[in-house]
Amino acid sequence: MREVVEKAQKAQKAISSLAIATTDEKNTALLKIADVLEQRMAEILEYNEKDLERGREVGLSQALIDRLTLTEKRITAMAEGVREIVELEDPVGEVINRWKRPNGLIIEKVRVPLGVIGMIYEARPNVTVDSTALALKTGNAIVLRGGSSAINSNKAIVKIIHEALAETNIPVDAVQLIENTARSSAEEMLKMDKYLDVLIPRGGASLIRTVVENSTVPVLETGVGNCHVYVDKDADPDMAEKIVVNSKTNRPAVCNAAETLLVHEEWAKSYLSRLAESLQDAGVELRGCEEARKIVPTLKEASEGDWAEEYLDLIMAVRIVKSVEEAIKHIAKYGTKHTEAIVTDNNEIAQRFIKAVDAAAVNHNASTRFTDGFEYGFGAEIGISTQKLHARGPMGLPELTSYKYCVYGNGQVRG
Amino acid sequence: MREVVEKAQKAQKAISSLAIATTDEKNTALLKIADVLEQRMAEILEYNEKDLERGREVGLSQALIDRLTLTEKRITAMAEGVREIVELEDPVGEVINRWKRPNGLIIEKVRVPLGVIGMIYEARPNVTVDSTALALKTGNAIVLRGGSSAINSNKAIVKIIHEALAETNIPVDAVQLIENTARSSAEEMLKMDKYLDVLIPRGGASLIRTVVENSTVPVLETGVGNCHVYVDKDADPDMAEKIVVNSKTNRPAVCNAAETLLVHEEWAKSYLSRLAESLQDAGVELRGCEEARKIVPTLKEASEGDWAEEYLDLIMAVRIVKSVEEAIKHIAKYGTKHTEAIVTDNNEIAQRFIKAVDAAAVNHNASTRFTDGFEYGFGAEIGISTQKLHARGPMGLPELTSYKYCVYGNGQVRG
Repeated sequence: MREVVEKAQKAQKAISSLAIATTDEKNTALLKIADVLEQRMAEILEYNEKDLERGREVGLSQALIDRLTLTEKRITAMAEGVREIVELEDPVGEVINRWKRPNGLIIEKVRVPLGVIGMIYEARPNVTVDSTALALKTGNAIVLRGGSSAINSNKAIVKIIHEALAETNIPVDAVQLIENTARSSAEEMLKMDKYLDVLIPRGGASLIRTVVENSTVPVLETGVGNCHVYVDKDADPDMAEKIVVNSKTNRPAVCNAAETLLVHEEWAKSYLSRLAESLQDAGVELRGCEEARKIVPTLKEASEGDWAEEYLDLIMAVRIVKSVEEAIKHIAKYGTKHTEAIVTDNNEIAQRFIKAVDAAAVNHNASTRFTDGFEYGFGAEIGISTQKLHARGPMGLPELTSYKYCVYGNGQVRG
Repeated sequence: MREVVEKAQKAQKAISSLAIATTDEKNTALLKIADVLEQRMAEILEYNEKDLERGREVGLSQALIDRLTLTEKRITAMAEGVREIVELEDPVGEVINRWKRPNGLIIEKVRVPLGVIGMIYEARPNVTVDSTALALKTGNAIVLRGGSSAINSNKAIVKIIHEALAETNIPVDAVQLIENTARSSAEEMLKMDKYLDVLIPRGGASLIRTVVENSTVPVLETGVGNCHVYVDKDADPDMAEKIVVNSKTNRPAVCNAAETLLVHEEWAKSYLSRLAESLQDAGVELRGCEEARKIVPTLKEASEGDWAEEYLDLIMAVRIVKSVEEAIKHIAKYGTKHTEAIVTDNNEIAQRFIKAVDAAAVNHNASTRFTDGFEYGFGAEIGISTQKLHARGPMGLPELTSYKYCVYGNGQVRG
């Protein structure tokens, strides 16, 4: 399989000119891409139709067909997304730190692109545009390996991106699409540590797991969220209800939705019935521990498996705890280090929870749903990292950069 | 093999109390460790002697025996090293950034420990003490997996560390030593992504490669350095000589020593003979390209392999280039992204080199040997990263931390 190596090498060769591209040059290229995407809409839709035909033939689910489908409106939205990235600040070139050593050396820590980003993803062709725009804005080259179901759409989009780039100062080779969508091409990408600086898998849990387990390239893992809301003894009942219902029902299928409700036993005696009713009214199936079911007999019985499950659905596990410490222990055992929330009017208890809970985001009196690059004000989101190296939580543009040390001397040598 | 899982789990359980340990509590524990290491010197030396006896029996090289050997002086140095770490600023708890969103949410990005660090290393028992001290100072638990040749020394040291910790507020379980030194125990550690947050291999290139290729745990890679010095057309001859000789000969066996000299053809005509003589006087064997050998006939002939080789010895490859661009291209092809230096009085050329060269450190008019945590003023060094994710170049205490987002609300939910 020469394709993967050759394209990864080409991307690698593009990074030296990308690294010195100015913000203006990068933005001009992005605006060109946005314009050409809109101008060539008919062509993209035609290729997308081929994917859809084949998808229907092989019996793809309606959900997958929907993710795969492009429309004029969706292409316009993709182009608008690129224009929004143009508006964001370019992190490359920022002097993060600068200091002088006693021997006169001046050391500057300067933000630079990561180099070549490998992206392995599934059906949605908008990821092709979105990832390319984020990579180019941060001076990175990108090697795209999308799923077979979207290959015609992806080919059309990348062809158009190449034609747009050809009219700019950004090298065409900065964007590479792997056209072979056999499993082996993804496997080969995982071993390209010579040419790829990072791999970002975007897709379901099994895709991410395969990448983490087999990649020799460093991975930015965006993982599952088994998020909890802990309602403390001193929680305001109205606020608790609002936050729990929002965390569970605002968008149940995403990673920052809450899956388990932990309730202090004293609070539960007074208010759990009312909270359970609100959740049930919102269509949530509740599965409780024995103690919870004594208070609210309408709860189904929770099994051990419920505490670890990311339902991504209108289902919530409910457990009574005796203290904040018991809540912290439960989260340490079952949590996925994504987002954990506490509702309490007691600041001391809140601080204990915030410090002891090991998660990307720990929220006091706020919905778990806020863990999001846009909600944080980043203006873009590459994903939500659940690992602790490099980046944690919502990742914006700076998370697609590294740094280098520029050392300025006047003849210093080491003694 | 229950040992690896059980010890990794124990370390994982220790992190919630480590995360809330105060700087004073951590420093008290480190001082206790330093004191007890000195008080129990005789015991450590006795166990070290067992390793040395076995090492001589199995015919370890003198170099390995030397790395393995502990003396009173070396143990005192280890204890002093721990006390120096006490003096350094604790990065944990630093508020890296804090901002308020339009909806009133206050978001704090706070520095936190990584969690559990896995350390895989070879013969030197001082790594056991050094790594433990760096980990505990930054609130991390550590799982140590040293080489079989040092197992008795490591057992004695960790036993003493455990006894010291038992008298402090830092949990004894924060430090774990894998006593089984079969290859399988290292292999098992590489798959412990459920309990380990990062793996740091310390040792030779083949150990590091094995870890990178097989680990499902994120790796902090400290790699090889095929470092270059480029002497530009406008280089001051005296400065060039001083920097090239220092970069090559100051300590040839380390990763920031220079391996290849690139010289602009015009400069070479006037000054290469003199520079070559200085290097040869310092005992350096020079291997040149055809052009270089025309100017300095005493150079041996360089083969293609020489450009890629990290000699770690008094050998240097020499190549004539026509421009800074050719130097940049050579470095892009053969460099390992560690440290690259340019000697020139022309600031424009220097800036072009600094921006285009992709390396952890790019030095203008300074020796390559300065890429070092102590030389940068970090006060400690975990290693020199040659990857671009998480940390690049010399790593100090902050590089052993991650961050979390603490989000403060008063009932905010997402619309």
